[in-house]
Amino acid sequence: MSATLSPLAPKSYPVLPPVGGVRFATAEAGIRYKGRTDVLLAVMDKGTHAAGVFTRSKCPSAPVDWCRAKLKSGKARALVVNSGNANAFTGRSGREAVKLTAALTAKAAGVAASEVFLASTGVIGEPLDASKFEGVMRGLAKSAKPDGLFEAAKAIMTTDTYPKVATARIKLGETEVTLNGIAKGAGMIAPDMGTMLSFLFTDAPIAAPALQALLSRAAETSMNAMTVDGDTSTSDTLMIFATGAAAQGGAPRISSASDPRLRPFKAALNAVLEDLAKQIARDGEGARKFVEVNVRGATSPRSAKRIARAVAESPLVKTAIAGEDANWGRVVMAVGKAGEPADRDRLSISFNGIRVAHRGARDPAYDEAEVSKTMRRDEITIDVDLGIGKARARMWTCDLTKAYVEINGDYRS
Amino acid sequence: MSATLSPLAPKSYPVLPPVGGVRFATAEAGIRYKGRTDVLLAVMDKGTHAAGVFTRSKCPSAPVDWCRAKLKSGKARALVVNSGNANAFTGRSGREAVKLTAALTAKAAGVAASEVFLASTGVIGEPLDASKFEGVMRGLAKSAKPDGLFEAAKAIMTTDTYPKVATARIKLGETEVTLNGIAKGAGMIAPDMGTMLSFLFTDAPIAAPALQALLSRAAETSMNAMTVDGDTSTSDTLMIFATGAAAQGGAPRISSASDPRLRPFKAALNAVLEDLAKQIARDGEGARKFVEVNVRGATSPRSAKRIARAVAESPLVKTAIAGEDANWGRVVMAVGKAGEPADRDRLSISFNGIRVAHRGARDPAYDEAEVSKTMRRDEITIDVDLGIGKARARMWTCDLTKAYVEINGDYRS
Repeated sequence: MSATLSPLAPKSYPVLPPVGGVRFATAEAGIRYKGRTDVLLAVMDKGTHAAGVFTRSKCPSAPVDWCRAKLKSGKARALVVNSGNANAFTGRSGREAVKLTAALTAKAAGVAASEVFLASTGVIGEPLDASKFEGVMRGLAKSAKPDGLFEAAKAIMTTDTYPKVATARIKLGETEVTLNGIAKGAGMIAPDMGTMLSFLFTDAPIAAPALQALLSRAAETSMNAMTVDGDTSTSDTLMIFATGAAAQGGAPRISSASDPRLRPFKAALNAVLEDLAKQIARDGEGARKFVEVNVRGATSPRSAKRIARAVAESPLVKTAIAGEDANWGRVVMAVGKAGEPADRDRLSISFNGIRVAHRGARDPAYDEAEVSKTMRRDEITIDVDLGIGKARARMWTCDLTKAYVEINGDYRS
Repeated sequence: MSATLSPLAPKSYPVLPPVGGVRFATAEAGIRYKGRTDVLLAVMDKGTHAAGVFTRSKCPSAPVDWCRAKLKSGKARALVVNSGNANAFTGRSGREAVKLTAALTAKAAGVAASEVFLASTGVIGEPLDASKFEGVMRGLAKSAKPDGLFEAAKAIMTTDTYPKVATARIKLGETEVTLNGIAKGAGMIAPDMGTMLSFLFTDAPIAAPALQALLSRAAETSMNAMTVDGDTSTSDTLMIFATGAAAQGGAPRISSASDPRLRPFKAALNAVLEDLAKQIARDGEGARKFVEVNVRGATSPRSAKRIARAVAESPLVKTAIAGEDANWGRVVMAVGKAGEPADRDRLSISFNGIRVAHRGARDPAYDEAEVSKTMRRDEITIDVDLGIGKARARMWTCDLTKAYVEINGDYRS
């Protein structure tokens, strides 16, 4: 948790209405930080369905291995998240820490260990002393309450400067259901299927396979369309828990992702995930500007996304934005290096809606002073039109500043 | 050309013995910089063979397009390189600038325009005013001399803080031949087959197809094993010119890359290119430390190289090194994100020869204070043993410092 609030922090936070069937509590387990909460427990009612997407890293953390294995049942009763230590690359001791945490939680909350999901974020490679959870777990289970989600979002922060929350109320059949989400990000952010950590809770009665299909699809254009530094974490975890509590109020039980009654829920899921993804980009380590990269005219969606990612991850593009320089030559470079179909002589580029390059050369109408003025804004849009196809993609990122180097040259010490 | 010399700059420069059959001259054409040379002419004798490897960028510069087309003949008589403007993404005007430059050179040097090779480095997207070469070209052709290569290395610099030169004397048959090389680098450096700009000259009588085979192979483990920021330039150009002048002294004429008499030449070519590649990494924008990443135990050379590249290009690994932190957790992250076969529980990592992680966890014998002390050095080695195969790869890079952000937030202005 950084001392200085990001200049891109939200001006207000939405009120998070309680989701029936889930309760939250946080505590100070003293994993790494002093004087702040660092562990979150969510307890969920029987019948809660779960779905998740995890890091594609070949060296995933111990909790990611655990969640993947336990998710097969599609059932969840508890979630424990700690900050300060990622429990990644911790070998046998990491696996034992995971087992101990699940056992402690199972005992305190009165659930099966196999229905406890776990996530850890923080330093990689340091053993996680899970016995520290022993002293706090019973108290967490006892004090868990439906309106604890905002505090939960704070407990999972590392170098984040603000908690990330989002919420939506939507109709499922004739019944209103709620979808709440929290996330944490900051550095090592180039989710290749989830973000560092993000958890969604809904009372909608949606069965696990349908939930999984919805989540996987929505992640692609939200968490997977966002990058801070191109470094994919060992711990990326995005999970959704559906307690089904709204069934009591008349919400229909949904078992198929293609059920037409899911339309509003799908839209809300996309909106909540996009909102959280943008909040993570805005709170990227050292970020002073939020950047949206739109690519269109590509030969395929995959190609469009790879090009958008090449632009969004280019250190030269990102430092230019930090320097308030509409340096479209570097955008050309990034398009070129992506290795995807592109034709220099059909390429057009705009900064903040002003076309600077058109069909392979500087736009004759472009006034550098006018564009430069817009670069002082804290939200920058780069539009790239490849002019060779119809596919589009969008990525969100932030600028690369000296503060990023400072934060990351001094993280462990 | 930066005002401050890199702390990693060479302490001395080798004397470059003249190569028979090639003469150099430099001038101030005023392309962008004031008070320094910015154009280089090399004039080569009839019979000079040429080979080249160029950027894989899908948006190559106009000179790269020109060189690719003209290289088909394998013959060269002149090389013109300017700094300050890359003549990339300049559309029709870029192609016309290339033609005009070649025509001016052909006239001044008395050669065919189709045997003139061109390279440009500097800002992307600004039209190159090639008429500026008109006033200097005749003088350049007249003043070209065999010992002008060191000055040539200076004329092609942009944000480089020192000129990059390397040389070797080797036996070809019974005759000594010379191989000289120059290069420039600094930023936008992740050559995918050459560096920003590098030119080699030899008097060895080696025919163009053999020369091309030698160069392509040697580039893979030298220029293509080096990265500053992962940003591949539109203008990467690596060329070798073989005048054949040594044939007069008895050197055998070589027409096949597999000729056993080439063995010393191949070794020298590798050494010269590796030397130049390391010099570029050492002079990366803002670099304070030189980093060598060695990966072994991979399932294939391609896989080893992708993992080495993921480590060498990770902003989190590079900022940790800038902060003198042996943060091997970030190396684990980079290995994991490469997407190549890896097994967390067989992975070992060393910093500066001290093993910090072994078989999926922190090495119990590792003393952080001892490793930290070695991190103060200006040359850092990271060894990664995947433990699952026999393939190896090596990459060179530099650290990521605040100075990189500073230089690149302020390049165009």
